[in-house]
Amino acid sequence: MTDQAQIKVARGSKPYLRIATEEGFCPPELLTAYRKLIEKNAVDDPAFNTMFRFYLDSPSARVRQINNGLVSVGEFRLKQMDDAGIDKAILSLTSPGVQVMEKDDAVAFAAYANDWLFSEMKSAPDRFYGLTAIAPQDPAAAAKEIERGHHMGLRGVIINSHTKGEYLDDKKFWDIFAAAEALGTPIYLHPQTPPKDMSRPFLERGLDGAIFGFAVETSLHMLRIIIAGVFDRFPKLTMVIGHLGEAIPFWLYRLDYMHRAGVVSQRYESMKPLKRTISEYMKENVYITNSGVAWEPGIKFCQQVLGVDRVLYAMDYPYQYEPGEVAKLDEMDMSDADKKKFFQTNAEKVFRV
Amino acid sequence: MTDQAQIKVARGSKPYLRIATEEGFCPPELLTAYRKLIEKNAVDDPAFNTMFRFYLDSPSARVRQINNGLVSVGEFRLKQMDDAGIDKAILSLTSPGVQVMEKDDAVAFAAYANDWLFSEMKSAPDRFYGLTAIAPQDPAAAAKEIERGHHMGLRGVIINSHTKGEYLDDKKFWDIFAAAEALGTPIYLHPQTPPKDMSRPFLERGLDGAIFGFAVETSLHMLRIIIAGVFDRFPKLTMVIGHLGEAIPFWLYRLDYMHRAGVVSQRYESMKPLKRTISEYMKENVYITNSGVAWEPGIKFCQQVLGVDRVLYAMDYPYQYEPGEVAKLDEMDMSDADKKKFFQTNAEKVFRV
Repeated sequence: MTDQAQIKVARGSKPYLRIATEEGFCPPELLTAYRKLIEKNAVDDPAFNTMFRFYLDSPSARVRQINNGLVSVGEFRLKQMDDAGIDKAILSLTSPGVQVMEKDDAVAFAAYANDWLFSEMKSAPDRFYGLTAIAPQDPAAAAKEIERGHHMGLRGVIINSHTKGEYLDDKKFWDIFAAAEALGTPIYLHPQTPPKDMSRPFLERGLDGAIFGFAVETSLHMLRIIIAGVFDRFPKLTMVIGHLGEAIPFWLYRLDYMHRAGVVSQRYESMKPLKRTISEYMKENVYITNSGVAWEPGIKFCQQVLGVDRVLYAMDYPYQYEPGEVAKLDEMDMSDADKKKFFQTNAEKVFRV
Repeated sequence: MTDQAQIKVARGSKPYLRIATEEGFCPPELLTAYRKLIEKNAVDDPAFNTMFRFYLDSPSARVRQINNGLVSVGEFRLKQMDDAGIDKAILSLTSPGVQVMEKDDAVAFAAYANDWLFSEMKSAPDRFYGLTAIAPQDPAAAAKEIERGHHMGLRGVIINSHTKGEYLDDKKFWDIFAAAEALGTPIYLHPQTPPKDMSRPFLERGLDGAIFGFAVETSLHMLRIIIAGVFDRFPKLTMVIGHLGEAIPFWLYRLDYMHRAGVVSQRYESMKPLKRTISEYMKENVYITNSGVAWEPGIKFCQQVLGVDRVLYAMDYPYQYEPGEVAKLDEMDMSDADKKKFFQTNAEKVFRV
């Protein structure tokens, strides 16, 4: 797609491993399940329907690469990782995972996806790591699945933003946070398209997906979680967000200023005083990855405002498979020590790799 | 509100003027009009109703300062500008202006607001400059009002994002762009709260306003305008957005990548090839101000990725009246030449001050 795609680098060419931390997969049955949901018109979500009508059947080369990549946790993916200089990948069930399904189907498919991943990862246990998929539709079952995944050896939890328009700041979901905190396992909050009562102004101009709507949906969700006091209730909870923190790092000053103003003026019943500022939660409870943003100015800005210990590498495979991006990021104007944190040791710490 | 509020600076203390470029005002009758609209339940917009029920009657000190500031284009405001070290202010009708009114009322009130501003500005013609308010509800009348304002000596056009859920990328509004381009006068796209079919997930946790929803609404609107090809049709049109570009500078890499992917895959009928990349339009047709974001890391990041000629100073008076913020920004680690562009000469160029 770009000139950089021609420049490849080898694994082992630098004094750090490259660990990619937001890499999508799915069992083939997930795509079949989405097709059935769409054919039955069973999902009340225009953005989901638009996106998967396109992704399931588009003949475009980009979509074929994505679908081939998603269903491989084996040779095809390892070859592409080798070509891109990626040593290890942390795999998570692609968005929206089971979160568009009916409750019982969602609980069952999440468990199936975790078993499938666990089995497939055995093809290269030193290169593949995984996160536990859950069905927030059933918070008690989700908490149990987090435990099961943790004891299987999975390294965190994946949640693909809203579930049928509901957000995790609603206390009915807080068993999920309790389980993750108790086990010391991180929750990766991944994008999906905005829900039906938000998406119209995005859809009209093709802005609902990765170009913009994903980021808005996910940053909104993360802010709802912070403002609801989740990290005051669960102070040891760790969360991870991709795409350079979905622009929250860019907004730290304004978020702190306006959150304080909102609390002082008591405008909202749902906005109470917190123990710390929004930027403090971002620096102490949240890690970010650069998935989909192989861009030195953005990466360095986030390191500057959050700290070099908070920013991790991710490619966003197979959605942004750019074999040359690693060579470009290897050349960032950044110390080798900071590059090692970015590419390797921050991920080792957060995901116990 | 903060320690910096205690540190004041004098006008004339530095080798540059300080021109604040996104400073709100309204004739007192606008607040009366909003009160009537709310009492009659005439505006089908939950975020507008929530916000103005609060702003019209809250006893909080912050809201009293805002309302006193809004209705003064004279002594009260000049004293506050003196205290903050601001030499000149570019005034614009506060959000959402007339854009919540019925068409005929909106057209009439926009003209009234422009006449009121023109008259009040005479109290200090070397310190006050203004933008022309319009009613997008009637694009032909809006185009005429842009001409009338221009010939009165106003220096640009203010539009407070969506009009009853409609966006300016709809071709029915393009007479507005044609008029602004023909006169060489900039359009300032200012935030308002998201429309009714977008705002629910924001409102539930107090995120609809300046803390977050404003930025999402306005960046979405600006991206819709770019992707619709407005700058291909009107290549000499200049637009301005505040709040450090509403985070669009942070997203330049991802926007260019995903716009190209969307065009190539032909996923959306409403996303056609453009002559330039999104980041090129941002660097060539759009200026940004730092309204509400008195934060060195964000300002310098935007200067880095857009160029020092594209970033202008704004205080966002009276919403963020911080008399000490200028002293803090005076001390940014930045050359005097670049500070002069930021505080003075970029504004002189864009708004013909």
